[in-house]
Amino acid sequence: MTKIIDPYGSELVKDYGNIIKNFGLEIFDSSTFPKPNRIMRRKVVFAGRDLKRITKCIKEKKPFYALSGIMPTNETIHLGNKQVVENLKYFQEQGAITFILVADLEAQAARGLSLEEGKKRALEFHIPAYIALGLDPKKTIFYFQSENKEVIHFAYETAKKITLNEFKAIYGSADPGRIISAVTQIGDIVYPQFKEPMPGIIPVGIDQDPHIRLTRDVVNRMKDKKFFSPSSLYHKYTPSLDGKIKMSKSKPLSCINIPEDEKSVRKKIMRAKSGGRATLEEHKKLGAEVDKCMVFELLKQHLVEDDKELEQIFKEYSSGKMSAGEIKQLACEKMVSFMKDFNKKLEKAKKQVDKLNFVKF
Amino acid sequence: MTKIIDPYGSELVKDYGNIIKNFGLEIFDSSTFPKPNRIMRRKVVFAGRDLKRITKCIKEKKPFYALSGIMPTNETIHLGNKQVVENLKYFQEQGAITFILVADLEAQAARGLSLEEGKKRALEFHIPAYIALGLDPKKTIFYFQSENKEVIHFAYETAKKITLNEFKAIYGSADPGRIISAVTQIGDIVYPQFKEPMPGIIPVGIDQDPHIRLTRDVVNRMKDKKFFSPSSLYHKYTPSLDGKIKMSKSKPLSCINIPEDEKSVRKKIMRAKSGGRATLEEHKKLGAEVDKCMVFELLKQHLVEDDKELEQIFKEYSSGKMSAGEIKQLACEKMVSFMKDFNKKLEKAKKQVDKLNFVKF
Repeated sequence: MTKIIDPYGSELVKDYGNIIKNFGLEIFDSSTFPKPNRIMRRKVVFAGRDLKRITKCIKEKKPFYALSGIMPTNETIHLGNKQVVENLKYFQEQGAITFILVADLEAQAARGLSLEEGKKRALEFHIPAYIALGLDPKKTIFYFQSENKEVIHFAYETAKKITLNEFKAIYGSADPGRIISAVTQIGDIVYPQFKEPMPGIIPVGIDQDPHIRLTRDVVNRMKDKKFFSPSSLYHKYTPSLDGKIKMSKSKPLSCINIPEDEKSVRKKIMRAKSGGRATLEEHKKLGAEVDKCMVFELLKQHLVEDDKELEQIFKEYSSGKMSAGEIKQLACEKMVSFMKDFNKKLEKAKKQVDKLNFVKF
Repeated sequence: MTKIIDPYGSELVKDYGNIIKNFGLEIFDSSTFPKPNRIMRRKVVFAGRDLKRITKCIKEKKPFYALSGIMPTNETIHLGNKQVVENLKYFQEQGAITFILVADLEAQAARGLSLEEGKKRALEFHIPAYIALGLDPKKTIFYFQSENKEVIHFAYETAKKITLNEFKAIYGSADPGRIISAVTQIGDIVYPQFKEPMPGIIPVGIDQDPHIRLTRDVVNRMKDKKFFSPSSLYHKYTPSLDGKIKMSKSKPLSCINIPEDEKSVRKKIMRAKSGGRATLEEHKKLGAEVDKCMVFELLKQHLVEDDKELEQIFKEYSSGKMSAGEIKQLACEKMVSFMKDFNKKLEKAKKQVDKLNFVKF
């Protein structure tokens, strides 16, 4: 099964293996947590830090939290955000107290987005989108960074505990905007522990690891305050549809946004890099190169919930029975259906926004 | 008269002249503002930036503000704080809207002082001390940095407008705590202009000029918001009683605190570096070396309000009629009397603290 649900092949596994080695991560496997979700089962989730502490909380029903931030800069979200929400949802269902913060101060420091505009976008789109993706609004606590004085005060306190060289060693570079954002993230990450120390898990893309490392370093160094080092969980990137980079708005034709209209979704998927052979004859003979197929990757990471269904697709495609055109068609239907479902849930969620649990400051 | 009220001599004048040249300051002279105060008349105030703008506001009775911050780290204040308050008082009397902020966030970032402790110290000592030194509590607006979300939000916005190299060029070095403090100071300095642009003057010791420069650079670069570049006014340091450095707690025997008890004041002044000659005979013949006398400096900068009285002392001392022992005795009496008066006013001011104009956030 491992081979089937990780068809991305040895090349990227080696890369992620290097990341694990270089950054001292723990390898994640699907036995780490009970009832793993789709991306956990399929090794899209590949590593973490201090995971056993969270496993223990789940199994012994002890309090822990899961937390993520919304950057309200973009007009849409992307498949990486979807993966974060799926992991948050998983921990929420396992009993985690769930926190979503709107990083409006960071959006201002990093991108110049005004606080008013950041707040507006978060309320009108990002928060409803996270709910549409599966978060239980009744069990989720929301706050705006700009309103959370405790986090900001903690950021000031933290700043003095970090040297410029330490910052550069972790982030590669340092500028005032990045520094002020980073110390604020540290405050956010441990905010749920301000009243009472408690384990917490932060599901993120691997690119967010610097924040986790810095937070863990700072927290471990604090003498006057006691915190659990935050645990973290990393998922692999969804590759761009041409297979060349991480899916990114910088290559719009290779990137699927959430939401995106049907016509555009179909066009992009039909043009995606597939595992089809040079001729149909060859394809039937040799079978698809599944490990090079970005369309199968979409199905595996995002569109097929059932493992048996995915295995069936893999078999038909890798044996040459299913053509590249057919797998693209299948992915189109599933993606269009996902978008329809998302839009319906989004509209519903938008109406709930004024009833959410926003922390009052 | 210039010679009399600036007996500190060519050596330090040359130093301050270099500062003026190197940092592009305007030379201050006592005709810059109407009815100059003691330290303005005596060239203790020696330079500034954009001073004509403030002169115009005073003369045309147009709105402007004066602002200073309290760092609640120390248990006492020093003579440099006294000079700042004297200048604030001057501008307050000339019609400035006067702001005093408690830099509790900075005290936390720079010195690790908790916000609670910072607030307590400011309310119990620093704010009453500033009132005891002459600020009109009814005409002064106070706030705590940690409560001023607008200033903090502005700090985040500002951080992204500064590069690390620019910061290093102005401050010599950069570390996260210093950076976060500096961007917050920028917010404080322009806070009175958030609703409506208005000229403002910041009276400071020359060591605070980096904050002024950075603020002016940042403000001039802002396209979306309009501010007047803050004006600034610089005073010379009160030298330590041994004449070797700026008066500083790092040399406690050469530093007079506010408040300080009578016995300690007398002991320190009697041991101060004076302008007395090797023998009394020589002193009578040649007169005192007034420009080397730290006791005369105390009288000039802090203890003698009346110019004629100071001139009389100068004459008697420089002619040798007044001995070093006598001038020390005179300074002791005046300093002890100042402390008594201060303590009386401090006790009175402490009772007014709950009636002050604190900005509500």
